[in-house]
Amino acid sequence: MLTSDRFFDPNPAQKAAALELYALISDLPIVSPHGHVDPALFSTEGRRFGNPVELLIQPDHYILRMLVSQGLTYEQLLSQENPRQVWQLFAEHFYVFRGTPSGVWLTHELEAVFNVTEKLNGDSAARIYDQIQTALLTPEYSPRNLFKRLNIEVLATTDSATDPLLHHQAIRASGWDGRIIPTFRPDNVINLAAPGWNENVAALSEISGFQVNDFKSFLRALEQRRAFFMSLGATASDFGPYQPTTEWLSERESEAIFQQALQGKATEQDTARFLAHMLCEMARMSTEDGMLMQIHPAVYRNYNPDVYTKFGADRGFDIPVATEYTRNLRPLLERFGNHPNFRLLLFTLDESTYARELAPLAGAYPSVKLGPPWWFNDSLNGMRRFFDQVMETAGLYNTAGFNDDTRAFLSIPARHDVWRRASANWLAGLLVRGMIDRDEAESMVVDLAVGLAKRVYRL
Amino acid sequence: MLTSDRFFDPNPAQKAAALELYALISDLPIVSPHGHVDPALFSTEGRRFGNPVELLIQPDHYILRMLVSQGLTYEQLLSQENPRQVWQLFAEHFYVFRGTPSGVWLTHELEAVFNVTEKLNGDSAARIYDQIQTALLTPEYSPRNLFKRLNIEVLATTDSATDPLLHHQAIRASGWDGRIIPTFRPDNVINLAAPGWNENVAALSEISGFQVNDFKSFLRALEQRRAFFMSLGATASDFGPYQPTTEWLSERESEAIFQQALQGKATEQDTARFLAHMLCEMARMSTEDGMLMQIHPAVYRNYNPDVYTKFGADRGFDIPVATEYTRNLRPLLERFGNHPNFRLLLFTLDESTYARELAPLAGAYPSVKLGPPWWFNDSLNGMRRFFDQVMETAGLYNTAGFNDDTRAFLSIPARHDVWRRASANWLAGLLVRGMIDRDEAESMVVDLAVGLAKRVYRL
Amino acid sequence: MLTSDRFFDPNPAQKAAALELYALISDLPIVSPHGHVDPALFSTEGRRFGNPVELLIQPDHYILRMLVSQGLTYEQLLSQENPRQVWQLFAEHFYVFRGTPSGVWLTHELEAVFNVTEKLNGDSAARIYDQIQTALLTPEYSPRNLFKRLNIEVLATTDSATDPLLHHQAIRASGWDGRIIPTFRPDNVINLAAPGWNENVAALSEISGFQVNDFKSFLRALEQRRAFFMSLGATASDFGPYQPTTEWLSERESEAIFQQALQGKATEQDTARFLAHMLCEMARMSTEDGMLMQIHPAVYRNYNPDVYTKFGADRGFDIPVATEYTRNLRPLLERFGNHPNFRLLLFTLDESTYARELAPLAGAYPSVKLGPPWWFNDSLNGMRRFFDQVMETAGLYNTAGFNDDTRAFLSIPARHDVWRRASANWLAGLLVRGMIDRDEAESMVVDLAVGLAKRVYRL
Repeated sequence: MLTSDRFFDPNPAQKAAALELYALISDLPIVSPHGHVDPALFSTEGRRFGNPVELLIQPDHYILRMLVSQGLTYEQLLSQENPRQVWQLFAEHFYVFRGTPSGVWLTHELEAVFNVTEKLNGDSAARIYDQIQTALLTPEYSPRNLFKRLNIEVLATTDSATDPLLHHQAIRASGWDGRIIPTFRPDNVINLAAPGWNENVAALSEISGFQVNDFKSFLRALEQRRAFFMSLGATASDFGPYQPTTEWLSERESEAIFQQALQGKATEQDTARFLAHMLCEMARMSTEDGMLMQIHPAVYRNYNPDVYTKFGADRGFDIPVATEYTRNLRPLLERFGNHPNFRLLLFTLDESTYARELAPLAGAYPSVKLGPPWWFNDSLNGMRRFFDQVMETAGLYNTAGFNDDTRAFLSIPARHDVWRRASANWLAGLLVRGMIDRDEAESMVVDLAVGLAKRVYRL
Repeated sequence: MLTSDRFFDPNPAQKAAALELYALISDLPIVSPHGHVDPALFSTEGRRFGNPVELLIQPDHYILRMLVSQGLTYEQLLSQENPRQVWQLFAEHFYVFRGTPSGVWLTHELEAVFNVTEKLNGDSAARIYDQIQTALLTPEYSPRNLFKRLNIEVLATTDSATDPLLHHQAIRASGWDGRIIPTFRPDNVINLAAPGWNENVAALSEISGFQVNDFKSFLRALEQRRAFFMSLGATASDFGPYQPTTEWLSERESEAIFQQALQGKATEQDTARFLAHMLCEMARMSTEDGMLMQIHPAVYRNYNPDVYTKFGADRGFDIPVATEYTRNLRPLLERFGNHPNFRLLLFTLDESTYARELAPLAGAYPSVKLGPPWWFNDSLNGMRRFFDQVMETAGLYNTAGFNDDTRAFLSIPARHDVWRRASANWLAGLLVRGMIDRDEAESMVVDLAVGLAKRVYRL
Repeated sequence: MLTSDRFFDPNPAQKAAALELYALISDLPIVSPHGHVDPALFSTEGRRFGNPVELLIQPDHYILRMLVSQGLTYEQLLSQENPRQVWQLFAEHFYVFRGTPSGVWLTHELEAVFNVTEKLNGDSAARIYDQIQTALLTPEYSPRNLFKRLNIEVLATTDSATDPLLHHQAIRASGWDGRIIPTFRPDNVINLAAPGWNENVAALSEISGFQVNDFKSFLRALEQRRAFFMSLGATASDFGPYQPTTEWLSERESEAIFQQALQGKATEQDTARFLAHMLCEMARMSTEDGMLMQIHPAVYRNYNPDVYTKFGADRGFDIPVATEYTRNLRPLLERFGNHPNFRLLLFTLDESTYARELAPLAGAYPSVKLGPPWWFNDSLNGMRRFFDQVMETAGLYNTAGFNDDTRAFLSIPARHDVWRRASANWLAGLLVRGMIDRDEAESMVVDLAVGLAKRVYRL
């Protein structure tokens, strides 16, 4: 059973203050400005979720990886044959999520969305499966109805530059009023080493209507796509480079590398320099069209080749590496850091950069803001470390509220609830230590819940 | 005087919960799966400890280094002439250990083992010396009797690959039932730059019965030694590379470098690549014989050449350096990470890798587990940071309980007590914040105290 | 309004202990052994501060950068035309400092120095401006009288090697008894890439009386300057290299690079190696003349070229980078680490080095001590992280108390008060957890407030 004062400091004064602050925001609508929910869920009224396993386990790489780390196999977990058996296995191992964010989120989802108050384990597995499955068959549990019931004001998806955004168009055409917007993510064309890069560029030509055969037409096609994304409500772009390296190439160099790439001859160094240059070009486009630029760097993707080969990407084997922002971002910031129309939102999985690099950058450049704790750090402790290491130097008003960044639609309220509680608890701690007063805390907690995200993403 | 609620959070609710959890584990036997106690202490019934200085100060590099940092000299501290004078000097400077783990451990040892409840300082020094010295002369304070009194269930030592393990054999032959097992640590033969490498290889030939004259016979000799260690109870191997770099060399390359080394001509680069390859070979052997593989990397050993030359290794001048696991371990994990018979236990002195690299690796690979806070981080704050930064992503069940990793036999209960109290306090914190329930906390606290260590080390 | 128990843990037992410890030190005189206050303030009795904007905003890069990050411009903020208008702008944006050290300090200054108890915002701006301005015109608010009223026992400035120290001489000659001492900072001559290096060397010749035309005379001139600084009370030197790299060059190499530099031909690599060598030479001089050596490394200075070009240095665009001490300092420590007359005080903006490198070095070398949290980390959380990550391994007695390191004279008491409260709170936490007893806490809190700084800086 979820307790109403969960996650708050046990000190009575701080807890009381946290409860009061939380009460101001617990019912505010959810602003989800960055994530990976499939827009197809919402494109037709009649769409339904599948069974509990398809819904809650198989697409969730946080859950898969933890079960695999405890000796279960992807073959067992991804099996389509007997979902009840997969659910049983999961329930018997649910104890391994004790104290983890996945455990917190799933417990919240089961209770808040499906009224499951029993503890999930081997004994209760079948009953809970039935309870969820029964609910999922009702119209009340359609994605569109849940979108309303979960109180989501706006939901941003993440979409490749070559995506025709058919589902986004269908949502608009349907007249349904849920606000679902795309995000422009061109990694598969700006990274010359992306799988199928030549096909991706061909698709870009096709969809943009520009014949992409040189660097200039490549840029024009990308600009066209950005405009198209914006026409469907996009306010942000997103990039996932291995390192946030930026560099300005001459026109001649960009063109030369691009031509090499078209012939499949770009070297590793070319590829790295081209991506570094493209981040600069994308920043330039942001100064022109006003889209927010987001960078989520420094993950070794598909680290486990066996798993990648057999089961594909996003299975839980993406491992962070150390990263560096100060030197890497300087060429970009030198040109655009002071630009009044530029906004750069930085994320990290390397917390050693919070206090050292990110907070000093965000606390000086008008263009730079800091995203919330990301991925592995989207957790109570991760949030505490973020507040601790970022806020004093960056200032609250150079941060961007919360991102759930999830594929797991039903976990969105649980994730925002953790953030809202962590925010209330942090501010209550400042309050009882005499660092801020109650008026300030009340204003700050609302900003953390919705205001900052709306402002940074212009939603 | 040791207080019964020491180290617990002052919040009454959390403290009460911590005390209840601690009560479940405070009397459990000690499982010490990794450390550096000298097995010779236990090979004969009649063995006695020397004087308090030989026992408590001179072999403890944590204590020596701190006194030296405050201006005392190794000449003074290591003097054999007048132990009472060394003790007096130590007692007069005992205040410098305020708030340090060494201070905590020594205070615990003095009270729990020797019934010393007076504060140690210049005034009390002589009295306390006498009290300890008197005790040490009694049979009750023999190493074997203390082993039983300290409630040690199993104690692992660390032994070079060429060690004949005579003391371990003597212990077994004596019929004494204390469980003391070796750990296979071949650094002095797999690191071509180890002092006396050629002699070490000759010793390996001698003791293994294999004439080691090429890379193949080198591997065979190592396999033989592993089997011999296992015959005396070993369940684990251990490695201390400067960086956890792994790389697969071709047979030809390994052989070529090995031959160069035999002639004293291996270059620095050869040495690094050979070690990187040997870690892979050792992993391969682990998949075959089932020994746990431990890696304790990234220490600049014998950093102070004057001290090393005059007073030898392990005097407190080993300084950590930054390290990297994600990229370095990939060649090894690519081959064996998913192997059902492989277990790799990782340690670090670079806490920036906890949340960034180690927890994501352990939270995905079935083979990878995380060791507890090591060396400088074996402290209350170090444990708090470990729980904070590791558990949410790795999950409790991918960690390995506690290692005391000590040469100081009498400090073992004190070190485990700090861990047990830190564990109880951490879980009490989760409990009062509604993250876990009491049943879960009770099961987790027992696993942290003994269960996880037994499972990971197969004890 | 400042509350008397501000910043302390809300737990009643810890707070009560913290209040008692704080009461022991709240009125102790301030020892400020490192900072950047302009000595000209004190060279004549009649000197007065200007208006509130010149005093509190325009010289404070912590404040400027944060306002700029929120879209204000340096043009607006540094305007000399209408200070009331700048103040109004500042007051309207004062909310952006919520929860930041600058907010804490300024609130303290306004109340403790100017009796301003109203909250600063757009409404109160004009009233508060008048209140401050009126006070500043009175003799009571002269720099010399404030020096006494703020209870400053000693204040160290930071001065270039070529500074004639005229203000320090004038202070001494005036008979005023405030203790203001210089600190020797030769970055502009030992860094061959410093702006105007040739002119700086010419100035060094001029002021030292040594014709600096080779490396030997360069060293002699520097030795002469150190002696001159010491004659005016200096006890410390200070260095700000990009990385704390040290290396011993041969006499021939040093001479060759120096000659190249005189001809404007030193390469980037020469420059780096020369600086690394000069740090070693400066350490050597410290062993001879007994000056403390301080290193404040790893800041990318003047990161924003537009701001630097238009508004100069120290405007808030200095961004830290990752750093490394273990390997970098070894050549220096190999020679002087054990020297009885050497003292090296290390600072960092890269907190990942606290537990990993700095605490182990300070906890072993008699010469190495650790400076307090620096710059961005001079904050309540920064101090908590410092106590947490440094003290267990380094030990309290290898640290150096507090540095305010500020240009903002009036913020000195506020900054020391934060440190004293953070210290009292930390020790109260150890006390209520049974780690130390009351006698120990009382002795330690006084050392943190003044004792350690006096000893390390020999004041």
